[in-house]
Amino acid sequence: MQELKDRIMRDGRCLEGGILKVDNFINHQMDPMLMKACAIEFVRLFANEKFNKIVTIEASGIAPAILVGSLLNLPVVFAKKKVPSTMDNYLMTEVFSFTKRRSYEIVVDKRFLGPNDRVLFIDDFLANGNAAKGVLDLVNKSGASLAGMGFIIEKAFQQGGEELRRQGIHVESLAIVESLDNCEIKLR
Amino acid sequence: MQELKDRIMRDGRCLEGGILKVDNFINHQMDPMLMKACAIEFVRLFANEKFNKIVTIEASGIAPAILVGSLLNLPVVFAKKKVPSTMDNYLMTEVFSFTKRRSYEIVVDKRFLGPNDRVLFIDDFLANGNAAKGVLDLVNKSGASLAGMGFIIEKAFQQGGEELRRQGIHVESLAIVESLDNCEIKLR
Repeated sequence: MQELKDRIMRDGRCLEGGILKVDNFINHQMDPMLMKACAIEFVRLFANEKFNKIVTIEASGIAPAILVGSLLNLPVVFAKKKVPSTMDNYLMTEVFSFTKRRSYEIVVDKRFLGPNDRVLFIDDFLANGNAAKGVLDLVNKSGASLAGMGFIIEKAFQQGGEELRRQGIHVESLAIVESLDNCEIKLR
Repeated sequence: MQELKDRIMRDGRCLEGGILKVDNFINHQMDPMLMKACAIEFVRLFANEKFNKIVTIEASGIAPAILVGSLLNLPVVFAKKKVPSTMDNYLMTEVFSFTKRRSYEIVVDKRFLGPNDRVLFIDDFLANGNAAKGVLDLVNKSGASLAGMGFIIEKAFQQGGEELRRQGIHVESLAIVESLDNCEIKLR
């Protein structure tokens, strides 16, 4: 998606340790027009898939997910990183975050993910794919099925995308970062 | 907003301790059409205010905030509940959560809130108003100004709304819960 690639080259910043900082337009301050363009592109890319629900993880996935949901009039469920005190019947899995160097749990209420659901997963980043694999685990545990996974930015130099595609999952990323070596952003 | 009130009466659940559970359409599974209708109503209610930025707090505020931002083409900033390892120059304040019975910190990068910003704050719930007061503190510390605060649901039997309005803040809530006594939802 050219508009997104141009924006990454213009406003993205590369930090040491393979970190691409896009907090001025994607995951802290958000550009709503760019987000909407991303949502439209997800709709286009998954036009041949059938699904009845959008799933994401709080917090950065919520904006692109709700915009996709509002284009398609489909419910959007965001997995939570803490069990709310009012939630008593949920599915849980563990996700290891490389950036934060610790594991965290994600949960979904069983009422919102089940055998009748076919899911499109939307998130901001695909790197090692641990969050995506966590959601896949929740989908499998619930008896739901997965139609595809859409990411705004994929880091091709980490293994998540390759692993998910090798499992036969329909993965789409709107911008793919080939390398951040020497703190220079190279896009595919 | 009648559509929202009807939905609360139909799908909302009252739990002990003054808790209104709306996780099937607002803050876990989200109905994107209802969310969009809420966003349009916020635009209408704040039509006479001038602002250049939408601010919210992760996670449940992000969906209504990005929808308001996408209607008005204004940047949306979500305050974070943890300091990202890549954030080094931020404003911080403490928020006490009555539901969770503990304090947490919220942060905003200084690059995204400053003297040139006039802010519309959007969130899902107004109860004791502690999250709203936290954001007001961040706005004040940054030198920005506040145009108004919009909430999807306000609990009138808690003090947040009264306190914010007493300070002269333009507060709008799309549905106001008068009482949850005896686990019966009474809307204004």
